[in-house]
Amino acid sequence: MSRPALVGRTGLTRSAIRGLIGELVAGGLVSEGRARPPRHAGPAVPARAPEPQGAVVLAFDIEVDSLAVAGSGSAARPRPRPSRPAARPLQPRGDRRRPRRARLDDPRPTADGGRLIGDEVGVGVAVAGVVRRADGLVSMAPNLGWKDEPLGARLANALGDDVPIAVANEAELGGLAEARRGVARGADHVLFISGEVGVGGGLLVDGRPFAGVAGYGGEVGHFPVNPAGRTCSCGSLGCWETEVGALSLLRRAGRSERGGRLEMDALLRGAAAGEPDALGALEETGRWIGIGLAGLVNVLNPSLVVFGGLFQRVIHSSPRSSRPSWIVGRYRRLDGSSASWRALSEAEAPLIGAAELALEPVLADPSAWLRRSADSSETRKLAVRRVVA
Amino acid sequence: MSRPALVGRTGLTRSAIRGLIGELVAGGLVSEGRARPPRHAGPAVPARAPEPQGAVVLAFDIEVDSLAVAGSGSAARPRPRPSRPAARPLQPRGDRRRPRRARLDDPRPTADGGRLIGDEVGVGVAVAGVVRRADGLVSMAPNLGWKDEPLGARLANALGDDVPIAVANEAELGGLAEARRGVARGADHVLFISGEVGVGGGLLVDGRPFAGVAGYGGEVGHFPVNPAGRTCSCGSLGCWETEVGALSLLRRAGRSERGGRLEMDALLRGAAAGEPDALGALEETGRWIGIGLAGLVNVLNPSLVVFGGLFQRVIHSSPRSSRPSWIVGRYRRLDGSSASWRALSEAEAPLIGAAELALEPVLADPSAWLRRSADSSETRKLAVRRVVA
Repeated sequence: MSRPALVGRTGLTRSAIRGLIGELVAGGLVSEGRARPPRHAGPAVPARAPEPQGAVVLAFDIEVDSLAVAGSGSAARPRPRPSRPAARPLQPRGDRRRPRRARLDDPRPTADGGRLIGDEVGVGVAVAGVVRRADGLVSMAPNLGWKDEPLGARLANALGDDVPIAVANEAELGGLAEARRGVARGADHVLFISGEVGVGGGLLVDGRPFAGVAGYGGEVGHFPVNPAGRTCSCGSLGCWETEVGALSLLRRAGRSERGGRLEMDALLRGAAAGEPDALGALEETGRWIGIGLAGLVNVLNPSLVVFGGLFQRVIHSSPRSSRPSWIVGRYRRLDGSSASWRALSEAEAPLIGAAELALEPVLADPSAWLRRSADSSETRKLAVRRVVA
Repeated sequence: MSRPALVGRTGLTRSAIRGLIGELVAGGLVSEGRARPPRHAGPAVPARAPEPQGAVVLAFDIEVDSLAVAGSGSAARPRPRPSRPAARPLQPRGDRRRPRRARLDDPRPTADGGRLIGDEVGVGVAVAGVVRRADGLVSMAPNLGWKDEPLGARLANALGDDVPIAVANEAELGGLAEARRGVARGADHVLFISGEVGVGGGLLVDGRPFAGVAGYGGEVGHFPVNPAGRTCSCGSLGCWETEVGALSLLRRAGRSERGGRLEMDALLRGAAAGEPDALGALEETGRWIGIGLAGLVNVLNPSLVVFGGLFQRVIHSSPRSSRPSWIVGRYRRLDGSSASWRALSEAEAPLIGAAELALEPVLADPSAWLRRSADSSETRKLAVRRVVA
């Protein structure tokens, strides 16, 4: 953007812009170059652009059956590295005898044996569980077998106190990703619903993430819809998750709940080919999605509902021309509420959200961040390398 | 408050305070007097106080079985006038052959035949239905028998376009009342749940009312909890309202659903005296309250849940020493979420909320409001008298 354009957009004076940009350029967050004004044939003018590698964060996505890592710059989309699918399938409920522990204080080499990136300024972590935002305590992640797991504290021990670490629920971060870089850009009140083995949600109020007083909000998988239903992994009876999660879809189609992603892929291929068992399972699951969605829309009246994760794959695997009708047809639309099926991919959304979360301190006040980071960068680089290399 | 105290609280200069206060005194919103500083034995100092009758609003509360009216000044609690209980009892579901129409464009004299107040600057209306805030359309008030009722437009026709009219859901306004003048003062994220024949809710996010994109949010009575339950007055199956509303409580106790408030009073007296039928009905209703509350707290993680309306009376009629335990004992408390039973009274809360809503334009920008009102006050007074006198 040229300096006159910056003056016009911000309302600041030319000299204020010059001072601020100078600070950002000196800190490596912004680079200077030449750009041709759009729709003008004139000569190129001096322009400033965010420096993609000016502030780089590490983003993690901890799912039940996979762990994904990405590096992301302040002006770039995260570039996911090949994630390592877990050899173990989706963990069936009831098999809780040996809950696995987080191993982040016992780091192991990455698959390719090398370091990921060298200049991380923050770490964002998406996890499929209930997270207290203040300190990254995962109070409950039943599908991972975690309870009161101090993930934030463990990461801080491993990476050093000077690397800001932010942990949040993966569906909440999926919602943040949609709001910043996906279909929900510009929408004010957004409900993001993401289904996998567990079902989570993210809520944006006036464009900002809302997670309640302790960051525990958005647990849409755990509101009760069926008192005659199954016991949920959280201990309650008939949570929405027990009717619309991945395991119930597999069970309804007569497939093994232990089959993991391969079994789910086979189910969705079957539905696309018109197999009655698969279509019946989708139909019944869709009925329950509609029941829960009606309740959420009645309470929250969002301007946009975005379906992510497994719901994305289910919808795009449906053979019907009017794909979403079996879901949205079942709830009474309220003024201003609409639904979107064009979410970011299942693999991308939580990672992008985790990167946005980690970048927030930089973007909120770049000058303050540059001052803080000047002191601690050397020790931080060493600490990050110790863990990821 | 003395002028030095105002300077200290606002950070404005003495001359700015002098100018602003002068404007408010001239407009009649603030009066000048003398006050003794607290904890000081010194002489009284000049002080300014809000003028209770400086801006007076009319507040209405339209319930299923009653209509209440109050006048309220900008610094006073509304003073409810004796409300006229409807001769007709709570309307049973199913008796929908002749939906009653709003009669507000066909005004009748008040009970005492006189005018209410003379200088109303706005009208706030609480109604037990789903309301679009932009224009006061009551899109659905099944317990009143209303559907797509343009209440705001009808009131504007009757009162004249120059009287600001604000219509909102009565439970939402109950929540606003709790936040401004009740137990929720100072709390950030508040969920207010009010039960009568219908069950409604109000949500405050960061201290401000949140009702979604079109003002339809907070309809906590209409999220589905029991697919094997009854058809709700809204047309859906097994809404929370069908399990925790007044009619289900009467039915469970073996009492007539048409019995209205007298029957409910008898039920609650019975519970206080230890009648098994009444206690069993409270126990079962409490179980359903807990089920729904768990879901709402999981989604919203409020700092405070306030129970109003019938729930207040139920709790305070319970004979047990640990009154709320049969409700809150059933949901897993999350960090920072607590429940309060010390709400404003059933009769007061929606009226206070309606008054606060009507006063909002005055309090948000008193100077602008004074300028606007200078022109239109004479015609407005006439119009208001035409309707209420």
